[in-house]
Amino acid sequence: MTLVMDEQVNQYKAIIDQRLETLFDEVTMYSRIKEAMYYSLTVGGKRVRPLLMLLTAAAFGSDIKKVLPVALALECVHTYSLIHDDLPAMDNDDYRRGKLTNHKQFDEATAILAGDALLTYSFQLISETTELSADEKVYALKRLSEVSGPSGMVGGQMYDLSYEDTTISLNQLERVHDLKTGQLLIYALEMGAFLSHQPIEIVEAMKQAATAIGLTFQIQDDILDVIGDEQALGKKVGSDVLNDKSTYPKLLGLEGAMKERQKFVDETKKQLDLAGVLETNLAQFVISLSERTA
Amino acid sequence: MTLVMDEQVNQYKAIIDQRLETLFDEVTMYSRIKEAMYYSLTVGGKRVRPLLMLLTAAAFGSDIKKVLPVALALECVHTYSLIHDDLPAMDNDDYRRGKLTNHKQFDEATAILAGDALLTYSFQLISETTELSADEKVYALKRLSEVSGPSGMVGGQMYDLSYEDTTISLNQLERVHDLKTGQLLIYALEMGAFLSHQPIEIVEAMKQAATAIGLTFQIQDDILDVIGDEQALGKKVGSDVLNDKSTYPKLLGLEGAMKERQKFVDETKKQLDLAGVLETNLAQFVISLSERTA
Repeated sequence: MTLVMDEQVNQYKAIIDQRLETLFDEVTMYSRIKEAMYYSLTVGGKRVRPLLMLLTAAAFGSDIKKVLPVALALECVHTYSLIHDDLPAMDNDDYRRGKLTNHKQFDEATAILAGDALLTYSFQLISETTELSADEKVYALKRLSEVSGPSGMVGGQMYDLSYEDTTISLNQLERVHDLKTGQLLIYALEMGAFLSHQPIEIVEAMKQAATAIGLTFQIQDDILDVIGDEQALGKKVGSDVLNDKSTYPKLLGLEGAMKERQKFVDETKKQLDLAGVLETNLAQFVISLSERTA
Repeated sequence: MTLVMDEQVNQYKAIIDQRLETLFDEVTMYSRIKEAMYYSLTVGGKRVRPLLMLLTAAAFGSDIKKVLPVALALECVHTYSLIHDDLPAMDNDDYRRGKLTNHKQFDEATAILAGDALLTYSFQLISETTELSADEKVYALKRLSEVSGPSGMVGGQMYDLSYEDTTISLNQLERVHDLKTGQLLIYALEMGAFLSHQPIEIVEAMKQAATAIGLTFQIQDDILDVIGDEQALGKKVGSDVLNDKSTYPKLLGLEGAMKERQKFVDETKKQLDLAGVLETNLAQFVISLSERTA
């Protein structure tokens, strides 16, 4: 490894940002839909999902060029889900990352269509790349539809809406998070390993690691909403209590939530170790995110 | 050919309906999203797109079993587009085919997610089938994303919304229809021919035929809204004039619209002849739809 973690992450993030900023430049489409798609795709964001895929590929010694189209497709799916989540009929948010949400910047109809377009385009990206074999493409497309569809992310969003204003069990909370956010993280690590020709046990360990990573991130989010520093986070804390949201601190208490987070951090390390990638920038990046304070 | 056109269409339609009614039975997902997906997918409809794909495959002597998963995926995409089109932010329709629209039967959030889920699942259907080779799957998935995405159907919907309340040219009208409805029809005939291993000139002629078919259907729709029989159509006529919609009769007059329709019927026949399928149930079915009075 020639680069330390921060440098590698910054380098990969620059590649991802640059590719996203020009993703549709060569694609003929009506200017308004292109503008709306670009708006949400380039409004900022940590690019955690594509970064995880690239870091996973690098951890297994692969050329990141190969997984890049799949990583960009994943970010398109994530972005579409945010656009639709923000809609008045869903979370009804006016701002995201300090900028107007898509339906406030444009209008509701445009936001619905921009989301639809990003979702559809993600499949086009993978099917069109010259970096993958037909078999690899089919697997990447199949898994992308599974993790983002009704048995994955969309199903999780449906659960989440149904559970609003009701107190749910720890099991139910875990299931919502696994579907709503965990599945896309699984895809990131799974594809990074699969496209690096890792054996099935390694791919499986990476999927287990991703499940634990997703829950760690969620618990950390919940904890920061209780004890986080508003200035460092750049957003108000305490909104979960205000909205009576089901969170780990609510169900387990703050100390219980911290213990639960540690459990998943340990599980993450165990699985990354099993996969032979504990001493990599990927592992360092994951741990740094799990312990983030802002 | 052993069956006359009506019999073959009825037989294929029964197969399509039966498969759609049980499409998610084996798929694990949250019951509410499954219910909402099934509701719109089985609420009725002529199944024109999957029928066209099956009839095309049959016209080229193929086993329809092979194209069936792709035909079902196409109907899923069509259904998702109707669900999102009907939303309050879009066309704001309470009824479709005499039944409540998805967001009236459930709620807006559920309708948005059910549409997202159907779109995503369409890609899963194709990627999972055992009927196609990996190369065939990749091509079917690539083309599905192209015809339904921002350069296809979604782009057409965006144009359509932008053109509301403005008078547009014949060229613009044709472009909206080509994108909004024509592209999915192209997919039906293209895939029916491509998956039957037809040479590229034949596939191209089928795409040309589909473009002409789409415009024929649209002009016939517009004409029926002027001179159709309300009882036979099962809906009010004259709504286009009332809504000041850009239509062929509005731009060309009724007689001009009828001439324009005939032009596209002739073009359809010419292309089907070039492809060697003019004497088939497919051609008969297409002509019967072009001349429908209800």
